[in-house]
Formats: sequence, C-alpha cells, structure tokens
Amino acid sequence: MMPPKLFEAVPNFSEGRDVEKVARIADSVRNTPGVSVLGLHSDPDHNRSVLTFVGEEEPLLRASVALACACAREIDLATQRGVHPRMGSLDVLPFVPLGPPLSDTTLEDAVRLAHRAGEEIGKLGFAVYLYEAAAIAPERKNLADVRRREDHWEPDYGPAEPSAHQGAVAVGARPFLVAFNAYLDTDDVEVARAVAGEVRERDGGLPGVKALGLQVGGRAQVSMNLTDLETTPIPAALEAVRRSAKRRGARVESTELVGLVPLADILEAARHCLALPELGPEHVLEAALWESRWNMPEGGLEVR
Amino acid sequence: MMPPKLFEAVPNFSEGRDVEKVARIADSVRNTPGVSVLGLHSDPDHNRSVLTFVGEEEPLLRASVALACACAREIDLATQRGVHPRMGSLDVLPFVPLGPPLSDTTLEDAVRLAHRAGEEIGKLGFAVYLYEAAAIAPERKNLADVRRREDHWEPDYGPAEPSAHQGAVAVGARPFLVAFNAYLDTDDVEVARAVAGEVRERDGGLPGVKALGLQVGGRAQVSMNLTDLETTPIPAALEAVRRSAKRRGARVESTELVGLVPLADILEAARHCLALPELGPEHVLEAALWESRWNMPEGGLEVR
Repeated sequence: MMPPKLFEAVPNFSEGRDVEKVARIADSVRNTPGVSVLGLHSDPDHNRSVLTFVGEEEPLLRASVALACACAREIDLATQRGVHPRMGSLDVLPFVPLGPPLSDTTLEDAVRLAHRAGEEIGKLGFAVYLYEAAAIAPERKNLADVRRREDHWEPDYGPAEPSAHQGAVAVGARPFLVAFNAYLDTDDVEVARAVAGEVRERDGGLPGVKALGLQVGGRAQVSMNLTDLETTPIPAALEAVRRSAKRRGARVESTELVGLVPLADILEAARHCLALPELGPEHVLEAALWESRWNMPEGGLEVR
Repeated sequence: MMPPKLFEAVPNFSEGRDVEKVARIADSVRNTPGVSVLGLHSDPDHNRSVLTFVGEEEPLLRASVALACACAREIDLATQRGVHPRMGSLDVLPFVPLGPPLSDTTLEDAVRLAHRAGEEIGKLGFAVYLYEAAAIAPERKNLADVRRREDHWEPDYGPAEPSAHQGAVAVGARPFLVAFNAYLDTDDVEVARAVAGEVRERDGGLPGVKALGLQVGGRAQVSMNLTDLETTPIPAALEAVRRSAKRRGARVESTELVGLVPLADILEAARHCLALPELGPEHVLEAALWESRWNMPEGGLEVR
C-alpha cells in the first residue's frame, strides 16, 4: 500500500514581530486534525512569517481556510509595516506535491488543491490570484508579476476590491525544490557570480539548477535552487560548483540547506560518499519505522 | 517532549523452511498492538528466521511472550534439522536500546526488559539463559559459551529440564551496532584480512570497530561491526579501510549495510560528503513529519 497523498504548504503571512499573534495564527493550522506543522520562521525586519505544514488534501484545505481566517482576524494590513513587498495579511500560499518514495502526489494534484483553496479563501473576502502551475493565464504565472499588477487585474476568486485590512493573496502550486547554498573561501562576490553563471541551467549549466552569486556574512555564496533532483541530485550540483570554483582559485568551504529535503536526496548523498549503491530507505531505522506505521491494515493514520 | 523509549528486538527462531509456520510466528508479533515489524529474513539452509521489531517496553514484552508461545506451538525442536547451531525453538532474543536522537533508551533499560522477558518466557516452559549485558555472571556473557554449556548450567529462569520440543532460549541485551562491509577490487582474501587487522580496535585500530577479512562471491570483503558510531562513524571506518587497502594496492569498489542504520549515521555521511556541518534531522522532510507525529499533545502513539 502506498502512503497517503501528501502535500507541503508553505504560506507566508504579514506578521513577524508580535509573537502572540504569530502563535495564534500558527495554532489555527496546528489545531486542524490530520495536519503536521514542520516549521515556523518569523522575520521581524520583513515583519513576515513562513509556516511549513504537511498533510493530505482535505486536512490541508481545512487548515488553509483556518489560516486565512486567522490572518484576516489577527493582521490589519492597513497598518502593517515591513521591508518585504506584500499584498495581503495572508500573502502567498503555495502547495507543493510530495512525490515518491514519500508519497505519490503530482503537480496536477497540487494545482487542483490550489484552485479549491483559492475558491474557499475568496469566500472569506480575500482577492485571490492563482500563480505558478495553478495560474489560469501565462502572464499570471510569475509571482513578481502578480505582485506588480494585481491592482489592475480581476482576481481569480473573491472580491475585486477586498478590504484594505485583508488585501490579496497569491495561491499557487509549484514542484518541490531544495534550496542549497555553497560558501566559497573568498569574499569576492564576482567569483560566486561567475560560478553561478556556469552551473545554472539558464546559461547552459546543469538541468534544474537555478543559481545566483551573493555576498553573505562577508563571504561569497553560490545560492541555488535545485528543482529536478532526479536529474541533478545535490552531490552533482556541489561537484559542479567545486570544479567551477577551483578553476577560479577558490574552494567550497561549507554548504547549507534552507528548508526541508526529502530523505531520498540525503540517501543519494550518502550512497555517493560511501560507495554504497544499494542504500535505500529500508536501511534507515526511522524510515522503516515510519513506513510500518503508515502501512496499517486499515489504511488510515491510526497507529496500532 | 522526547519520543517514546524504543527498543529493537532481533529474535532468531528455528524455522526457515515452512513459510506458513514462519508467517504464523511473525503474525504473533505483528498482531501485538504498539509493535512495528521492520524485517523478517528466513534462511532455508540454516532452517532459521530472524525477525526485527521495534516498540516500547510493555508492547515489546507482550510481543516477546506471544512470539515464544507461537514458537513453542509451531516448532518441534526434537524433529527440527538445520545447519545453524541452536538450543531452542525460540533460540535467541536480544533487546537493543535505541538511543538519541531517535529515542533515549539505555543499555540498562534493555537489560531490565531482558530480565522481565526472560522471567515471563521461563513460565512458558523454556529454559532461559540471560546473556551479554543481561548476563548474571561473567561466564554467561558470551552467546557461544552459553550454547556450549547450557546442558550443564542451571537456567536463570524456567525449568532446568525443558521439554525437548521447546528447548532453551538465550535472552539478552546488547548495544546497537551497524554491520558494514567493504568489497575490495581484488579476490585476494589476504588483503582483506590484513586491512581488517589494521582497522579493528582489538589490534590497535579504530575504537568500536570489529573487523574480519572474508571472501564473498569471489571478492575480498572487509566485514565490520561498528559498535561506537559516535566515536567512529561510518565515513571514518570507510576512510581507514580505503587508506589501508591503498597501501596494499587495492581499492574499495563498493560497500553494503546489513540490517538497519539510524538516520543520524546517514546524516553523518551526508554532512561529510556535502561539507554541510549543520545538516540535522530537522532538515529531513520525513524525519520532521515523523517527529511531529510522535510529539502529539496527548503523548501517546495516536496520530491525529
């Protein structure tokens, strides 16, 4: 039996300073049966929080509606101030399908969920713009375009003129991605930019790699999004950065992951490092335990 | 809140040919609430099966008694034949503590569970010998010694003269270990023996490494048990084997894991390979999900 069809939701909402408000908003999701909150990160400068939660379609739909409700109740966008551009109290709500081996959810499933959530959240008084894979027109795919143009566009759901307290929300679907950054042993951001230009798909580099050269904490950083981990797994992206940096006289000192990575990608790195081609989730104690608990005869979430 | 106190049990029983008998014996454990069966391996030549299951103390105790009962019912040791030395229908029953971060069970906890299980299984008519960390005398620690001497020793629990159908069982507690084998690009077993001699703790090698040189499938294999993964993690053991093999003109072609490995040790390998010092279970999607499901408000095994 397959595990349930799981999605990840990564909403951003426009409150990152008042910890009690943030907690009440997060609790609206936490208190929804069938949903697991995996992360909550608040940024006071941006006055913005990111919540990560996982569940099946129906619980996630209920949690998303509860979240939109809590944002409308707790946040007054008319008086809210912050560095980050924003259009709503609940600002963006992307749904991400979790594929094999964790689950067998597809991007189409996530698009359907985004449309259902958009319709429900529209009924709560938000102007809803569907974006990325959920967009109903090509010019609405890009979130930055939606942010720029939403004043002039008819929303996909909800009122054309939402209350100034709630505002508009972008609800979308996108494939899973891993945010992976490599720090170089130089402070020269030009080296990072040259490496990024060499490894990213757009400029003829590796498939599914987006990359930028940045300066972070006084060090040159190659900041990557890996969007096709089957074709370009983490060790392959790192190897390309190492080679490109070496040609410029630099070395990768350390790396970092932002957000969550499926176990399959960690296993790929360990297989590579340990010359252990047969390594699978069935060798990982926690994964075997997790699997055996999902695969209950009754097919439900009940643990026996 | 910490996850529950988990143990692994790895019983061996003296039936590996009659698949229906094996299934009925395994079902006695599977049908015990609170226990997850993670593996079952039957060997027809040895006429013997190994079952791996995990749970908290009380469910594991109940599952162990149910297993002993099923073995007594299904297996007649008086007529059983097989290559592997054996003393009972249920032959050995070791309990293994699962430590942090998965759980916080100690070897002392496993010793207590082994004594409780031994007492209950003795009441079912098995002669019970406590071994390894659970042994009540130093000469009873070693399983091979117990096998050799049990005819002359008073059992720790149960009748001194058990029925010939049931026989005797060794019930013990031992630390967690990882069985990790490295295949060399040579068929010369002497190279594997020399490498094993160099890396194992007994001969001045790495702490917590037991190693033997073997010939498996026409290739030289360094077969290791890693018993102290905090001091000598998998990549460190592999690195030592690689260096030692290189000095003898050989290379590690591939490796294999036998049995289960905690996620922490896979993460250690990935940290090493990806120059990713901050990598923790909180970055692994499945682990975060697993954690959030254990950490239910009610503190039980119920998944909401």
